[in-house]
Amino acid sequence: MNYRMIFRFIGNILLFEALLLCFPFAVALINGENGYLSYILPIFMLAVLGLLSKLIKPLHKQIYIREGFIITALSWLLLSFFGSLPFLLSKAIPNFADAFFEAVSGYSTTGSTVLTDVENMSRGLLLWRSITQWIGGMGVLVFALAVLPGTDARSMYIFKAESPGLQVGKLVSRMRLTARILYGIYFALTAILFILLSFRMPLFDSLCHALSTAGTGGFGIKNLSVAYYGSPYLETIITIFMFLFGINFSIFYLLLIGRLKEALKSEELRVYFAIFLTATALIAINLLASGTYKNAGEAIRLSAFQTSSILTTTGYSTADFNLWPSFSKWLLVLCMFCGGMAGSTAGGIKISRVIIQSKMIFKEIKYSINPRQVATLNFEGKTLEAGVIKAVPAFILAYFLLLLSGTLLISLDERDLLTNFTASLACLSNVGPGLSLVGPMGNYAFFSPFSKIILSFLMLSGRLEIFPMLILFSPKTWKK
Amino acid sequence: MNYRMIFRFIGNILLFEALLLCFPFAVALINGENGYLSYILPIFMLAVLGLLSKLIKPLHKQIYIREGFIITALSWLLLSFFGSLPFLLSKAIPNFADAFFEAVSGYSTTGSTVLTDVENMSRGLLLWRSITQWIGGMGVLVFALAVLPGTDARSMYIFKAESPGLQVGKLVSRMRLTARILYGIYFALTAILFILLSFRMPLFDSLCHALSTAGTGGFGIKNLSVAYYGSPYLETIITIFMFLFGINFSIFYLLLIGRLKEALKSEELRVYFAIFLTATALIAINLLASGTYKNAGEAIRLSAFQTSSILTTTGYSTADFNLWPSFSKWLLVLCMFCGGMAGSTAGGIKISRVIIQSKMIFKEIKYSINPRQVATLNFEGKTLEAGVIKAVPAFILAYFLLLLSGTLLISLDERDLLTNFTASLACLSNVGPGLSLVGPMGNYAFFSPFSKIILSFLMLSGRLEIFPMLILFSPKTWKK
Repeated sequence: MNYRMIFRFIGNILLFEALLLCFPFAVALINGENGYLSYILPIFMLAVLGLLSKLIKPLHKQIYIREGFIITALSWLLLSFFGSLPFLLSKAIPNFADAFFEAVSGYSTTGSTVLTDVENMSRGLLLWRSITQWIGGMGVLVFALAVLPGTDARSMYIFKAESPGLQVGKLVSRMRLTARILYGIYFALTAILFILLSFRMPLFDSLCHALSTAGTGGFGIKNLSVAYYGSPYLETIITIFMFLFGINFSIFYLLLIGRLKEALKSEELRVYFAIFLTATALIAINLLASGTYKNAGEAIRLSAFQTSSILTTTGYSTADFNLWPSFSKWLLVLCMFCGGMAGSTAGGIKISRVIIQSKMIFKEIKYSINPRQVATLNFEGKTLEAGVIKAVPAFILAYFLLLLSGTLLISLDERDLLTNFTASLACLSNVGPGLSLVGPMGNYAFFSPFSKIILSFLMLSGRLEIFPMLILFSPKTWKK
Repeated sequence: MNYRMIFRFIGNILLFEALLLCFPFAVALINGENGYLSYILPIFMLAVLGLLSKLIKPLHKQIYIREGFIITALSWLLLSFFGSLPFLLSKAIPNFADAFFEAVSGYSTTGSTVLTDVENMSRGLLLWRSITQWIGGMGVLVFALAVLPGTDARSMYIFKAESPGLQVGKLVSRMRLTARILYGIYFALTAILFILLSFRMPLFDSLCHALSTAGTGGFGIKNLSVAYYGSPYLETIITIFMFLFGINFSIFYLLLIGRLKEALKSEELRVYFAIFLTATALIAINLLASGTYKNAGEAIRLSAFQTSSILTTTGYSTADFNLWPSFSKWLLVLCMFCGGMAGSTAGGIKISRVIIQSKMIFKEIKYSINPRQVATLNFEGKTLEAGVIKAVPAFILAYFLLLLSGTLLISLDERDLLTNFTASLACLSNVGPGLSLVGPMGNYAFFSPFSKIILSFLMLSGRLEIFPMLILFSPKTWKK
């Protein structure tokens, strides 16, 4: 294990977080907020640690998958730790488990909160929450790859460990250029969203919402979330952009370089679209049939917003879907499992895995009555490799395993099982709100510190696609 | 497709059910119960249909997996249909969806009931419910194989389709002898249980409970289930026997022929035992810590009974575990997923699959950081074949898929989601009681006829290990 390279890399990440913290610090200064010292201390600590790591000279620069996983998992843990300090030091969130939970929720783009009154927060901290979601969405290590010099050759494995989805496609042959293109598209889309929002929202609100939407995070700055603004225009814009940020960014790249046909051929994109439309339609019908809403237009608008929000694992709400009929609620739960496309900022199992797994089950059924059939599986026009065929079910089942065990552990808190189950799922899939006590009008404040640590683990596991986090806690990783 | 052989086989099964119905018929006559006509009509119908099928002369006797699956799925549907007629005709259960649900619940050894007052049922019908569970436990087709002449050579595929577990081991080289040995052990164990129960229970009660316990079915004849008798002796006996019937019958066979060492070496047996002990201990501690019970002995006794009952998917209760703390309840839910050993009468995913799947996930984690590692998987001392490695995750994921979709469909009834989720799980795993409205003191009467059909489908899917039922409804099966 190349420990020196690990330290070097993580040192860079810490320096980067020091830089990020300057934004909310500036906002706090401009607004004359008290407690701006709570930014200075972490910035100072991060800068010192980061600079100290520069003193470590690696013996060689080679790193492998294992190092990539460890760098990723440790970076995210440390980012969350230092990212929680402004909450803690400002006493806006006065205990560590809560502050850490909030920071993890931010970076992992979950959007679960322990705050009971978010409108009571200072602007600096509100912006900080949204910034963590923006950076968490595309990945802090991907960002580092885009800007740090000379990291190209050995960065493949880090990129792999941090990026969501089973096939991490390099868009172009050079890793660093890929990272830059991704962040370029990401920045441009966020900027467009910001401008569109600013027509009907104050500038600060637009900025926070643009950042949180882009990362499919879902931290709002109002207690009523997006419902506060009561504007069908804003709801429509956000519905569309949540959906866009759930799309694989390589599709946008194909559009950019004029390969529209190729982009539209994507199997995953079509299924993503089909799931969104089907779920929206079914929920709208269910809402009308059950008399929850009388007006068809309203039912469709609310249903489309909520489906887009949950499917992309953003987590905004324009209605208290906890009060919706069971069928609609369970459909939203199924969307939480599913998540957005691979290579997007969304969480969940990912559409591509859902497609491949469904095909595998059908193949297996066919195979069970006709074992002589040759079983090759195609996805996006290509035959799948044996590695992927093994990895997909293992991933999904590890997902279920984490969900079921997480639910068990937080059940020690004695809340109802629907709360525990959907809280675990909403954290693992990086959604944010669940049902019952953690519904869109609820929050995660009531959980015990132990449960908050468990849920933080689930959020990071979900964001980093499980294996990096599990490997970090496996003794075998640290042997030899 | 060899339709003639399918008809022939199913005809035999119908004749066999006519024979089975004679037992409750006799009980009804002896007890001078009204409505014994409700047995005569189905017996007559079954006999006529069965004898008519004898007129069909197959062109050849060869059958393959596909025929095996279809014979199994169709037989179980028809058995359930005709098995529901005594409930319907006697007006004990006055509508078809309810009567069919009750019959499916019997044959699939689930034990979910639509009866709100089971003590109001006639003895004939109570016995009929228990008989269906006994036959359903080991399998009606396996029974047919044991007694029908000349079915040996071509019966392998039927045996495979009906028997639970991934590796259907022929105990001896001849299929028919295997079936006879299995039923011999099954009968002997049931007889011992009957005798042990009869020391503290009326004979009729002992018979019904012995049959239902052996099939890990769980139909009780009292509204309070086993709690009615208030006898620690009976509870202990039933705890032990539920556990025994959750053991792979080939283990008993090994014991019979004196290969004790080999029997005790079974990996699945050890894990089964470990899961039972761990869950019992954790639940007992949780019950004491939460103050649900004050007495340690009582907590352990109730916990052991309930763990044994749920893990083996029997479904009896001695306490209303719906009122237990969340942690205990969720542990029981996890036991519902797990189920007993392959080759037992228990339902669920089965311990062997859980073991293999866990190993696969660990292998995949190791593989993800060290892709050059050679990945072979061992189970019970043997390297697993590629077919099994593909089949296990496909099965478990199909299981989750059925569970999640079943929950969605019955959610149209507007009950709470915990009811819907645990009802689907308890039916799919052939447990019986779930949580909330379908808890041990509840029942399934309130569901709509549509939901009852969905749940019946889940019960049969669970009992026949999913694929035969899915294949029956796939248009491709019937092509060519």
